Amino acid sequence: MRVLVLGSTGGLGGALARALRGHELFLSGRRPGPLRALAEEVGGKPLPADLSDELEAQALLEEAGPLDLLLHAVGVAGRAPVRQTPRDLLEGMLQAHLLTAHHVLKHARFRPGARAVFFGAYPPYVRVPAFAAYAAAKGGLEAYVEAARKEFLREGVHLVLVRLPAVATGLWNPLGGPPKGALAPEEAAQRVLRGVLAEPPPEVLEV
Amino acid sequence: MRVLVLGSTGGLGGALARALRGHELFLSGRRPGPLRALAEEVGGKPLPADLSDELEAQALLEEAGPLDLLLHAVGVAGRAPVRQTPRDLLEGMLQAHLLTAHHVLKHARFRPGARAVFFGAYPPYVRVPAFAAYAAAKGGLEAYVEAARKEFLREGVHLVLVRLPAVATGLWNPLGGPPKGALAPEEAAQRVLRGVLAEPPPEVLEV
Repeated sequence: MRVLVLGSTGGLGGALARALRGHELFLSGRRPGPLRALAEEVGGKPLPADLSDELEAQALLEEAGPLDLLLHAVGVAGRAPVRQTPRDLLEGMLQAHLLTAHHVLKHARFRPGARAVFFGAYPPYVRVPAFAAYAAAKGGLEAYVEAARKEFLREGVHLVLVRLPAVATGLWNPLGGPPKGALAPEEAAQRVLRGVLAEPPPEVLEV
Repeated sequence: MRVLVLGSTGGLGGALARALRGHELFLSGRRPGPLRALAEEVGGKPLPADLSDELEAQALLEEAGPLDLLLHAVGVAGRAPVRQTPRDLLEGMLQAHLLTAHHVLKHARFRPGARAVFFGAYPPYVRVPAFAAYAAAKGGLEAYVEAARKEFLREGVHLVLVRLPAVATGLWNPLGGPPKGALAPEEAAQRVLRGVLAEPPPEVLEV
């Protein structure tokens, strides 16, 4: 498979990249150093990009070429009550989760039967005090993917929305570390790939 | 009641304002001319503002003072397949629906027992081809309100999420007019107010 892992310098993206060793791997992330190291480790091609910039996203997807599998493991976390949420926090969250997904989906090239995977969130876990910005970004992303699904099916491309429980990655650093019982990234990656690559591909995969 | 109607120069906001005649009414919208005319008609105070600007929203909410009822009848519609969606369309949609709601909720002052009302969307109606941007904005707004609900309950304020069927307003103009069977705005306003003002206040009102 020709596979593009976005956010591959993150904990989940890195675990996905490692689990996909042996495929033709294109790895993207914002930090060129760690990205190069990961690419050497797993035998992939490093393509650094900031996906919140549409032109960068477009260039990346042209360079990666037609894909069988695209994994959007991109995002940030943050916490603030509404009364103290600066505009930057909400806009940054929307940009990281939703606008990057839009740029990617708009410009990606796929092979027939390809799968494009996005990560949503279980509503009861995120629709809680101090998480309005994060919940909005994930809720917006889920709705976006659901609306886009039929458009892409016409191209023969399957959009898969994955909901994961907490995964022990750096995403949690701004929140003081992952919650107890968080999945190891390697375990999360295995479960995601097993589910996403099933036949027929699922529309929503709850891990 | 001290009532603030946001988006009151729109079809739904105007109908809500007319249905609330007799209360102490504060009316906001972006177009000063129609806003003034409406304010004269229903005996309210016109407060023009662009709520996508946080400082304007803050100034408006300070001028309106403590509220018993806030109605966020703000939004735009638009249609484009993902492959042809310009960044402006998605960002404009998020700004109109979600960032305005955030600015309002962040700076609003309420009396005890107040209700703040936001308009979501039935997922099956909007998660359809060519509506990904609109669906994302409404999905983001719904998740945001759900996450914020408990924060505001601690202040004694009830957030109400309303889902309406299509209403025959100018929102549909960019899409070629409202669909058949769309509710008249007056009828929609009556149903919204009846539901929102019920005791106890609903969390989600499906009209």
